[in-house]
Amino acid sequence: MNAPALVRENFNAEKWRASAERLFDELRERTTDGRGVTRECYAEGENAAIDLFRDFAEAHGLKCSFDRAGNLLIKAADDDGAKPATILGSHADSVPQGGNFDGGAGAIAALLCLSRLSAERRSGARPVRVLILRGEESAYYGRANIGSRALFGLLLPADLDAKRQGKGRTLREAMKSVNADVDAIAEKECLFDPKAASAYLELHIEQGPVMVARDLPTAIVTGIRGNLRHRRIVCRGEAGHSGTVPRWLRRDALLAVADLLMRLDDHWNTLLERGLDLVITTGILSTDSETNALSRIPGEVFFSFEVRSQSFETLEAFYELFRSECRAVSSLRKVSFEFDDRIYTEPAKMDEGIIEGFKKTSKQLGYPTELLASGAGHDAAVFANVGIPSGMIFVRNRNGSHNPDELMTIDDFMCGVQLMYCFVSADI
Amino acid sequence: MNAPALVRENFNAEKWRASAERLFDELRERTTDGRGVTRECYAEGENAAIDLFRDFAEAHGLKCSFDRAGNLLIKAADDDGAKPATILGSHADSVPQGGNFDGGAGAIAALLCLSRLSAERRSGARPVRVLILRGEESAYYGRANIGSRALFGLLLPADLDAKRQGKGRTLREAMKSVNADVDAIAEKECLFDPKAASAYLELHIEQGPVMVARDLPTAIVTGIRGNLRHRRIVCRGEAGHSGTVPRWLRRDALLAVADLLMRLDDHWNTLLERGLDLVITTGILSTDSETNALSRIPGEVFFSFEVRSQSFETLEAFYELFRSECRAVSSLRKVSFEFDDRIYTEPAKMDEGIIEGFKKTSKQLGYPTELLASGAGHDAAVFANVGIPSGMIFVRNRNGSHNPDELMTIDDFMCGVQLMYCFVSADI
Repeated sequence: MNAPALVRENFNAEKWRASAERLFDELRERTTDGRGVTRECYAEGENAAIDLFRDFAEAHGLKCSFDRAGNLLIKAADDDGAKPATILGSHADSVPQGGNFDGGAGAIAALLCLSRLSAERRSGARPVRVLILRGEESAYYGRANIGSRALFGLLLPADLDAKRQGKGRTLREAMKSVNADVDAIAEKECLFDPKAASAYLELHIEQGPVMVARDLPTAIVTGIRGNLRHRRIVCRGEAGHSGTVPRWLRRDALLAVADLLMRLDDHWNTLLERGLDLVITTGILSTDSETNALSRIPGEVFFSFEVRSQSFETLEAFYELFRSECRAVSSLRKVSFEFDDRIYTEPAKMDEGIIEGFKKTSKQLGYPTELLASGAGHDAAVFANVGIPSGMIFVRNRNGSHNPDELMTIDDFMCGVQLMYCFVSADI
Repeated sequence: MNAPALVRENFNAEKWRASAERLFDELRERTTDGRGVTRECYAEGENAAIDLFRDFAEAHGLKCSFDRAGNLLIKAADDDGAKPATILGSHADSVPQGGNFDGGAGAIAALLCLSRLSAERRSGARPVRVLILRGEESAYYGRANIGSRALFGLLLPADLDAKRQGKGRTLREAMKSVNADVDAIAEKECLFDPKAASAYLELHIEQGPVMVARDLPTAIVTGIRGNLRHRRIVCRGEAGHSGTVPRWLRRDALLAVADLLMRLDDHWNTLLERGLDLVITTGILSTDSETNALSRIPGEVFFSFEVRSQSFETLEAFYELFRSECRAVSSLRKVSFEFDDRIYTEPAKMDEGIIEGFKKTSKQLGYPTELLASGAGHDAAVFANVGIPSGMIFVRNRNGSHNPDELMTIDDFMCGVQLMYCFVSADI
C-alpha cells in the first residue's frame, strides 16, 4: 500500500497531540467535582466546558456563535454560513460524577480537526463546522439529547416542564438561563434547517467493553440501537406452602419467569449466531417483598424487560417472540402476565457512504476497519433520524462510561482524530 | 369384603357426630378473633381451647391433669398410668387469624376416640391416653413444637429467651404463666419417659391441596419432611450498561440464577419420576434494589433456597446436586455464589407397622389407602425422632391452612375419627 497523501508537510503532529492533552487537562480542571467531573446541562459545568472550547476556537482564529437552542456553533473565519456544511459535533455536558471523555473527546476532536483544516486553509467547497451540543445526558431532566432535539422541534411540552431531578427548576428555566429561545422550542419550531448540513459526524468513546476485548483503538459505528421496553411486568401464579404443595399442583410465578428468561436467552443466542444485532436485558426482578418468604411459593413476580437493536424489524420480531414465549409459559406453568405500557425508542442507521468512507480511510491509515453498533444513545441518532447523513467513530475506552474511571489513552484518541481529519479533508 | 366387626351395637353414630359438631362450634366461638380464630400459645386463646377440651373430658368421666410442660393429659377413669399407652395427640394453639381445624381437628378426634373407648370400657391391656399439646405453631416465638420439645429436653436456651414476635414477653415467662416447670425445661430434663408411650397417633387436616385434587377424604402419612435451607444466597456477576455490553462479555447475575433454577426444576422433575419424595422452592429472589435499573445488567441477585424431603439421603443428595449446579453455572456464566449458613431440620418417618395398620383398617372401612408425605411439620415428628412409633392420619381440607378459610367437612372428619378409633380399638 502506498503511503497516503493525507499527512501534509509542515504539519506538526506533536503540537497537535499536545493541544489535545492540554484541552483534556484544562477541561477536567474546570469541571472537576473532586472525584470525577460534573458538567450539568444549562448550568455551571456545561457552561465552563463551552467557555473553554470557545476560548480555544477563538485563539485559533475560528468564529463562535450560539444557535437558538444555546448550542455553540464554530465556523472557519472565511465561512459565511451560506453553503451546507459537514458538522463535527459532540456534547459538552456530563452525568453527575462522570468521566472526562464522554462528550469531551468528541468536542475536542472536532475542535482539533477544524482548527487544523482552517490553518491549512482547506475549508473550501464544502465547509466544515463544529457544533458543541448541550444537554445530551438524561441524568438531570430525564430526557436525553435535549440540545439536538431542541434544534429539530422534537422536545415535548412535558420535557420542558420536567424539573431538575424531579424537584428543582424546570428544563424551560434552565434553557432560558443560556438564552435559548424557549418559546420557539415549545412551539416545536425547527431551529436548524436539515439542508444546512450535508453530514453530521461524531467521535465518541465506546461505552461498552468490546474494543478493549477485541484490541481495537478505533471502530466505525454502523448504527445506534433503539429499544422496546416494559418497566414493569407482573407474573401471577399462586402462592402456597412450600412444604405441602407438590410440583404438579404448583403455579410458581418465579419458576415461570426463570423459564421465560432462559427461553429468551436461547433465542438471543440463536439470533446472534444468525448475525442479528440484539441485546436483551431484565435489569429488575423481584418476588413481592410484602408477602415473600423462605417457605412460600412465590405467587407474584415483578420484572422489567428491554430489547435493543439497530434494526426496527429485529426489535419488533424479538418483541413478538417475547410475547409468544410469555403465552407458552403461561399455558405450561399456569400463570398469567400483565404488561404496562410499551416504550419505544427509534433506532438510527449511520449513513452507508460515510461508513464506507471511514473504512477506506481507516485502511489507508493502517487502522482497523471493524464495525460496531452503538448500544447507548447519541445525538447522531437525532441527526440521522431527521435525514442528515450521519457517522460515528468510536475510540477505545476502559471501564465503561458515566463514571470517573473512564479511561481513554491519548494514543487511541489521536488515531480517532486522525481518522476524522483524513476523512473530512479527503471529503472536502 | 365382609362387614368388619368394628362398629359396636348400641353405639350411636349420630350422637358421636353431633358431639364433634358441637365441639368445633364451641371451639370456634371461644377463640374467634372476628375473622378467624386466634389461639396464642401459653395465652388466652390456647387456654380457652384447653379449658373446652378439659370440660368435655370431665363431662365424659375422663381424668385430666397437666404435665410439667403445661400440656393437658387425659386418661380413662380406670387408667392408673402405670402401663405404656397409645397416645392420641394434637395441639390446642393456632397461628394468629388462623383456621379452626389446624390442631383442633386432631384434639377433637382424640377426645371422641377416648371418650368412646372409655364408654365401651375398652381401655384395657394397653391404655389409650390423650395429649393436648401447647405451642405447636412457630408464629409467636419462632420455634415450632414447643410443647412436645419441652417434654423431651429439646428446647434450647435461645428458644426460652425468644421474645413474643421479637418484642413481647419471653417464651420462658409465657410458659411459666401456665405453670410449666421452666427450670427443668431449661436444664433439658426429660419430662416424658419415651417408654411410657407405645405409640403416638395424630389426626390432622392436610395443609396442601393434594387430597382435594385426588378426591381422598382420608390419607395415611408416610413421613414428615425435613428440610435444608439457605435464607440468603448472593449471586455476583458484573453490572453493566444494557445497551453497550454484548452477550459474550456479560456476567448477568439474574440470567445465572434463572439458569440455576431451571436446572434444579429439571432435576426435580426427573427425581419425582423416579419416585423420590422432594419439593424445592425459592420463595425470595431479588435484584439489588439499591442499584438495579431497567437498563443495567444485574450485577447481584439475592435468593433463598429450600429443599424438603422425608428422606435424609434425598435431602443431602439434592443439596449436593444444587451446589454442583451452582458450580456449573458459575463457570458457564462467570458468576460466583456466596452462601449463608445452611439450616437443617430433620425429617421423621412414620412407623411402618402403624402405616400398615392404618392401611388395613382403611381397607376394612372401605376408605382409600393412599399414602401421603407431610410437607408441614407436626409434633408427631418430635415423638418419632425420640423413638416412639408414630403415625398420622390426614383429613381432606380445602384452601390450605394458617388462614381463616380452612375448610374440612364433618363427613370427612368423621371418616378420619372412625379410622383412628377402629385402628386403636383393634390395636388394644
